[in-house]
Amino acid sequence: MSEALRIGIAGLGTVGSAVIRLFDEKVEMLTRQYGCPVQIVAVSARNRSRERNINVNSFIWYDSPEELAVSADIDVFVELIGGETGSACRAIKLALEAGHHVVTANKALLARHGVELAQLAESKGLLLNFEAAVAGGIPVIKVLRESLSGSSISRIYGILNGTCNYILTQMEEEGLSFEECLKNAQALGYAESDPTFDIEGNDTAHKLALLTSLAFGTIISPENIYVEGISNISLADIRMADELGYRIKLLGVAVKTDTGIEQRVHPTMVPTSSVIAQVKGVTNAVAIETDLLGELLLSGAGAGGNATASAVIGDIADIAKSHLCFQHGPVFGTPANALKPYIKAAVRFHAGGYFIRLGVYDRTGVFASLAKRMAENDILLKSIVQQPVVETQAQGTKTIVLITHQTAEAAVRRALAAITQDGNLVDKAQIIRIERFS
Amino acid sequence: MSEALRIGIAGLGTVGSAVIRLFDEKVEMLTRQYGCPVQIVAVSARNRSRERNINVNSFIWYDSPEELAVSADIDVFVELIGGETGSACRAIKLALEAGHHVVTANKALLARHGVELAQLAESKGLLLNFEAAVAGGIPVIKVLRESLSGSSISRIYGILNGTCNYILTQMEEEGLSFEECLKNAQALGYAESDPTFDIEGNDTAHKLALLTSLAFGTIISPENIYVEGISNISLADIRMADELGYRIKLLGVAVKTDTGIEQRVHPTMVPTSSVIAQVKGVTNAVAIETDLLGELLLSGAGAGGNATASAVIGDIADIAKSHLCFQHGPVFGTPANALKPYIKAAVRFHAGGYFIRLGVYDRTGVFASLAKRMAENDILLKSIVQQPVVETQAQGTKTIVLITHQTAEAAVRRALAAITQDGNLVDKAQIIRIERFS
Repeated sequence: MSEALRIGIAGLGTVGSAVIRLFDEKVEMLTRQYGCPVQIVAVSARNRSRERNINVNSFIWYDSPEELAVSADIDVFVELIGGETGSACRAIKLALEAGHHVVTANKALLARHGVELAQLAESKGLLLNFEAAVAGGIPVIKVLRESLSGSSISRIYGILNGTCNYILTQMEEEGLSFEECLKNAQALGYAESDPTFDIEGNDTAHKLALLTSLAFGTIISPENIYVEGISNISLADIRMADELGYRIKLLGVAVKTDTGIEQRVHPTMVPTSSVIAQVKGVTNAVAIETDLLGELLLSGAGAGGNATASAVIGDIADIAKSHLCFQHGPVFGTPANALKPYIKAAVRFHAGGYFIRLGVYDRTGVFASLAKRMAENDILLKSIVQQPVVETQAQGTKTIVLITHQTAEAAVRRALAAITQDGNLVDKAQIIRIERFS
Repeated sequence: MSEALRIGIAGLGTVGSAVIRLFDEKVEMLTRQYGCPVQIVAVSARNRSRERNINVNSFIWYDSPEELAVSADIDVFVELIGGETGSACRAIKLALEAGHHVVTANKALLARHGVELAQLAESKGLLLNFEAAVAGGIPVIKVLRESLSGSSISRIYGILNGTCNYILTQMEEEGLSFEECLKNAQALGYAESDPTFDIEGNDTAHKLALLTSLAFGTIISPENIYVEGISNISLADIRMADELGYRIKLLGVAVKTDTGIEQRVHPTMVPTSSVIAQVKGVTNAVAIETDLLGELLLSGAGAGGNATASAVIGDIADIAKSHLCFQHGPVFGTPANALKPYIKAAVRFHAGGYFIRLGVYDRTGVFASLAKRMAENDILLKSIVQQPVVETQAQGTKTIVLITHQTAEAAVRRALAAITQDGNLVDKAQIIRIERFS
C-alpha cells in the first residue's frame, strides 16, 4: 500500500458523484479526521461522457467495475452500482480476493450474498463496510456492531423506507388518498416511476434482513420475512387510527421469540404519543430494545445523495484509521494538540423566539404600554395571550404571555427593563427561550 | 501485555458493580464480541467489606485507585470513582503514564481536564474512552468521533439530564408543582438528596462542554456556558406552553454562529410536534444538525447502572479490538462462520393487538354476530367504534372498527373467516397490526 489511502469508486450516480464532490470540497477536514491522506484515484462507470457536475478527468477511468476492483492502483473499492447480482457482486468478490477493503451501499446484494462476502472479507483480514446500506445517514450499523457488545437485543424495528413514510405522512397531514400522495412523491423525486419495490415493502425487507443478522447473530434470511406493503392503506384507516390515538407507519420488525426470530414488514399502528410516531416525511428511524438500555432510538435522513455519501465517508474513515498501522483515533475526534481555541458567542447575541410570561395589574393601558415597549425595541410579536384565571392569581391582576418572533436577547432584556420601569408588573417576568426546529 | 486483556476497575458503586456482574453473567458473549478473552483482574474501592451483591474475592484488591492505576497486573484502567479532582484525576494520569488504556464515566473531570488527559493519551498511543460520560447508554461519543467524518456540524442540542426531564414530564402530565415532582424524583432515586447540581443545570453543562468539543473541534470550555436551571419553572409556564403548542425541556445547546460557538443550558420551549418533545421521563436525547444529514437524533437511557455499564463495556470492546494486534471486527458483528442458522418464528405466532376495520351491512344482529365470533376465538376487544359516515360509504352499510387486546394472529384469521362466512361483510376486512410499545 502507498502512503495515502487510495480509493476507487464504481458507479457515478447520485451517491458516487456526491462522494467525489465532498472529497473535493472537504479535503482538508477529511485528511484531519481520517488521520492520513485519502485520495480518490480511480473511478468506473458505464458512460464516460455523461454530464455529472463533477470533474472526473483527474481519475484513472475504468470502463468496467471488475477491472477497477482488481486494479493495483487502489486500496479500497467503493461499490455504488446497485443491483443484487451481476457486475456489483462480481466486482466486490474480485476486490476482496485482490486484497482491497470494500465499502458498499448495496442492501439487496448484501441481503442475498452478505454472509458469503463477510466470510471472504474476514478470511482475508479485510473490512467490508456497509453503513450506507441501511437507513442512509443513520449510523445504525456501527452502533449494532460496536456499541452494544454487552447488551442482549430483544427487538429491533424501524421506519426504513422514506418513500412509504412520506406517503403515509402526506395522507395523514393533507387528507389525500394513497394514489395522490404517491404521485406527489414521484413528482418530488421521493418515489421511482415504478414504485413497487418501495411501496410493497421489499426495500424495507432487505434492510431488515441485515439488521436482524447484526442484532441476533443469525444468518441473513430475507426469504423468511413476512412482507405486506402500504398500497392497501386507505384514508379511512388513517382517520380511524387518528381517532383511536394511533398513527400508521410501515415498520420492519424483528423480534426474538421463544420459537425463533420473527421478521415482518407491514403497516403498523403506533401510539401517537410514541417517539416513532413523530418521525415524519422521508425521515428514517431505528429502535433497538435491549436488556441493559431499554429502547435506544436513532432517527435521521434515510436517503439522498448527501446522507448516503456521509455514511460512505464514515466507512472510509474506519478503513483509514486501520490503514495507519492501526493508530487510535483522537480522543475528542480532533487531535488534542489541534483543538482550536474556543471562541465564545455571548448569549446576549442568541437570536431566537421568546416566551415571556408577565403578571400585570388589571388596569387600562397595560396592553398598550407592553406593545409600545416591544415595538420600540423592534420586537415582533407572534402572539399575545391572556391566561385564563389561575388559582394562584392575586385579585386585580392578570397574566399575559407574549410569544415573540426571532429577536435578539439584548432587545428582550431592554424591553423588559422598560416594562418593569413602567410599574405595571406584579412580579418578576418569566422568560423562556424558544428553540428553532426545522 | 498478556494474551487476555486485563481490566482493573476503580470504584465499586452502582456502575462498577454492574460492570462486574455483567462480565460474570455474559462472559461467553463478551469473549465472542470482543474477539479475545477479557478479564477483570483487579479492583479498588475504599471499603472492602461493604455489601455489594457481587463476589470480589477473585480479584486482586487495591485500597487506592492510584496503586491500581500503576499496577503491572492490568492493561486497561476503568475509572468509576467520580469527582473532578483528587484521586480520580491523579489515578487516570498515572494509568496513562504507566501505558494503560483508560475508560471513564467522569464528565466533571473530563470537562475540566479532558484536553490535558487527551494529549497525554495521544502522545502515548493509548485510548481514553468516555462513552458513559455523556447520555449514559446512548453512543453519541462514538457517533461524533467516528461516523460524522464528512459532515460539518452546525448545532448540537440535547436533553442530557434525566432528573430534570423527569420533573418537567411529571409537572406536565400530573399537574404537580416543581417541589412536589422533585420530592417524587428523590423518592424514586432519580434525584439526589441535594439535587442542586442536576436541577440548576451544572450536570447538563459538563456534558454539553464535551459534546461541543467533539462537534466543533474546540478546546473544552465549560466556563463559557450560560447556565439556567429549572427550579424557576412554574405550572403556569407549563400550562401556557401547552396551550401555545410547546413543551418545556431543559436543553443543552451548542450552536456555531458568525461570532463563535454559543453554549447554553436553559429551559427551552420546543414544539409539541417535534421528536424531542416526546422524549419523556428520565430518557435522554441528543440531536446533531449537519450539512449532509439534516438532523440526526439519538434517544435512550441516560443513566442507571446497566445503561452506564453498557457504555463502559462498549468502550472496553474498542480497546479489545485494538489489543488483538488491531484485527478488524467481524462484518456482521458476529464472525461470519459463527453466525447461527436463522430459526423462523412464523408470523401466525405473532401475538399483539389488531386494528380490524370492517364494512358491514347496516342491519340488526351484525354487532352481536361479530362479538360472538371474537369470543369464540378468545379474542378480547379493547374497543369497538362505529365510524362516522364516510363520503365513500355505500348506502345501507356502515364501518366498524375493532381494536383487540393482545391475541394470536391465527385466532384473528379464524374469527375473520367465520365473520366472512356469516355474510355480513360488504368488502374485504382490513387488518393492521398494533405494535406494543413500553
